[in-house]
Amino acid sequence: MREVDAYLGLGANLGDRERALRVAVQRLQATPGLEVVACSSFRESAFVGEGPAQPPYLNGVVHVRTALPAATLLALGKALEREAGRALPAPRNQPRPLDIDVLLHGGQTIDTRELVVPHPRLHEREFVLTPLRELGVDVAALARPARPRVIHDPAEFAAVCTGWHEGGCQIGVVPTMGALHEGHVSLMRLARAENDRVIATIFVNPLQFGPKEDFAAYPRDLQADLGRCGAAGVDLVFAPSVAQMYDPGFCSHVAVGPAAEGMEGALRPGHFSGVATVVARLFALCRAHRGYFGQKDAQQVAVLRRMTRDLGFPLRLVECPIVREPDGLAMSSRNVYLGAADRRAATVLFRALCAGRQAFAHGQRHRDALLEVARTVVIAERRASLDYLELRSEPDLEPLPAGPVDHGRLLIAARFVDGARPVRLLDNLSLTGPGA
Amino acid sequence: MREVDAYLGLGANLGDRERALRVAVQRLQATPGLEVVACSSFRESAFVGEGPAQPPYLNGVVHVRTALPAATLLALGKALEREAGRALPAPRNQPRPLDIDVLLHGGQTIDTRELVVPHPRLHEREFVLTPLRELGVDVAALARPARPRVIHDPAEFAAVCTGWHEGGCQIGVVPTMGALHEGHVSLMRLARAENDRVIATIFVNPLQFGPKEDFAAYPRDLQADLGRCGAAGVDLVFAPSVAQMYDPGFCSHVAVGPAAEGMEGALRPGHFSGVATVVARLFALCRAHRGYFGQKDAQQVAVLRRMTRDLGFPLRLVECPIVREPDGLAMSSRNVYLGAADRRAATVLFRALCAGRQAFAHGQRHRDALLEVARTVVIAERRASLDYLELRSEPDLEPLPAGPVDHGRLLIAARFVDGARPVRLLDNLSLTGPGA
Repeated sequence: MREVDAYLGLGANLGDRERALRVAVQRLQATPGLEVVACSSFRESAFVGEGPAQPPYLNGVVHVRTALPAATLLALGKALEREAGRALPAPRNQPRPLDIDVLLHGGQTIDTRELVVPHPRLHEREFVLTPLRELGVDVAALARPARPRVIHDPAEFAAVCTGWHEGGCQIGVVPTMGALHEGHVSLMRLARAENDRVIATIFVNPLQFGPKEDFAAYPRDLQADLGRCGAAGVDLVFAPSVAQMYDPGFCSHVAVGPAAEGMEGALRPGHFSGVATVVARLFALCRAHRGYFGQKDAQQVAVLRRMTRDLGFPLRLVECPIVREPDGLAMSSRNVYLGAADRRAATVLFRALCAGRQAFAHGQRHRDALLEVARTVVIAERRASLDYLELRSEPDLEPLPAGPVDHGRLLIAARFVDGARPVRLLDNLSLTGPGA
Repeated sequence: MREVDAYLGLGANLGDRERALRVAVQRLQATPGLEVVACSSFRESAFVGEGPAQPPYLNGVVHVRTALPAATLLALGKALEREAGRALPAPRNQPRPLDIDVLLHGGQTIDTRELVVPHPRLHEREFVLTPLRELGVDVAALARPARPRVIHDPAEFAAVCTGWHEGGCQIGVVPTMGALHEGHVSLMRLARAENDRVIATIFVNPLQFGPKEDFAAYPRDLQADLGRCGAAGVDLVFAPSVAQMYDPGFCSHVAVGPAAEGMEGALRPGHFSGVATVVARLFALCRAHRGYFGQKDAQQVAVLRRMTRDLGFPLRLVECPIVREPDGLAMSSRNVYLGAADRRAATVLFRALCAGRQAFAHGQRHRDALLEVARTVVIAERRASLDYLELRSEPDLEPLPAGPVDHGRLLIAARFVDGARPVRLLDNLSLTGPGA
């Protein structure tokens, strides 16, 4: 590797701060493969950050010339922190006798689990910017990373993910068709908590719409979606066009088995094959460690769980609870198309499911009796036209025979056809699992 | 990270060797995060390795105690080599003023692009083993890595590949059904030259055999196959059982389009879907950068190229030339089932293709005339029963209309039914590309 100019941020707010910084610089000077070119003055700054108040920091920046990789500088920095008496791994937001960050490493962009260079909060930190300026770095010229980053091209998307894999990052992906609501956001937040990098994909997939369905009319608002993704901590949004996802010769598809039969599969021929194909393609492109899906589309989750296992994607499929409006309506991108009267009537799906669940709680065990309780609620709402109401096994959603049941999930689909545009809504509820 | 005992191998065979080793040890002592516990005596040993003769080496081993990662020790070693006057990146097999290897790092096994620990040639090198013994290391207890490593479990296979991805390795995969011959070996050798890690998969895939085909009788000899893989430089053989590849609920499959129609697709219904499904699964499990396939199964390559693109695997599909016996017969695992007379007759496939190619070279341009030239050769061999003979476009193998052609690939399949077991053979040849 050729030599580069690298900049290390030094800070201390515990013990003899100035001595700690001076010793660190001396130790760096003694390190093989590294030449200390210059060191900024040390300046005091008030503590900024989360948690309880802390003593002020003394900060400085060291300019080194080195052929050592950035990860090596990070490891050496940790070794110096340890020498200075800091317990490692360090608890967050505690006073520290020494803190060393890799701020810049040549012109390189690094995005690994352990290290992001240029340092991601560089531009927010005057205690770093001032010493960098003193050392002659044109900080204004340093690019500020977009957040979330937006990529349209599949090959570029795959390449970024490859870099993350090589950087040891755990990757979570939230496949969506956009028109994001709180349900999607709940998936992104969970993905954020469980992964080093979070991807949301936004793609209205023509393969999963029937010829008479609402592909063209499906709501699309990329700018609003990006705002929600950014607020939920998504790192990367993959938003390809149809032509980018499917070239003219596209012809392979993923066929799925019994999980795709009945319910949505019966009403929407080819729908689940379209879903399985696009999700397999997304999984193949990003090779995520975890994929997040909402339980509102419970049959979709069952189909995708099967596909993921059958095709061997080393990915954990995470199923997340339905997010509901205050009146119980399951959140859906299609809810915006409900007229006011239909919107009020649409709560009937959840009310019907709750009635069935309550009957089970009160001792009713017969499959058809439970279904009848729920059906009676739906029929009373004349604006709703029932597509299906079923009780299926958990977690695989296999049909349950007539007779007594000891568990199960009620699944319902209904249409509201009185508004300007017919709207189909889905909902489901476990008889025994967590409510809502 | 907690501290571990690590062992660094030092060597020099240029300049003041002893001084170079002593300076390196001193520099290590000054390095943050690293304590030199002990240093072996320095011993002289004759040069071993490829290339022209070199002066003898002076070698020693340093025992350090450190919390620095192994990759950091490697980078520091390179920095010390550079300080000692060694040009980096170093040309192979040149005398060197200093050479530093990471031999052991705690009990850790590391397998990345840059670093394999324990050092892979440790057990072959007395100039390393002797100083390690002097430092009290029980070298006999160190496991010798199996080569190739054999894995049967898909999850374990995926996990090893994940480690390689995180280690920055480029991965090549050679999917096979075993019964390996020189054709397979040529794929492995190319994969070895183009990748950091090479996988061969050995799996007789029931999905791609019809009910009346030779799934049960397909030749299997894992031990012989492992020998061939090892000799070809394969790092890992993935050899799952049918139950490990397909659990009882398996039901998804990959369906393929026009590339799978006609020729093999017409004669073997479901064959290419079975091939596409198992290969998609292998690609999903290992996430290889390159996949190697022989051109003998030309239609299979066309189908897999389409599948790879459609499902979005970020993998380059490498198509390798047919390897032939001295008399021109394309190598095939099924050749072993040919009786002596059929074996002699089987050269008719290649002879027919060559006749068509020669007619093209001599100016014949009409599709059907070219096919007739080849067909005449086949018909003259009474032991051969022709399944199909076609001229298709390159590289996609789409049907060519009747009339003049300016390029194309002749594809043939024939059966030899007089032996103990009927054998079907395939072959193909470009009219214009490289011969054989």
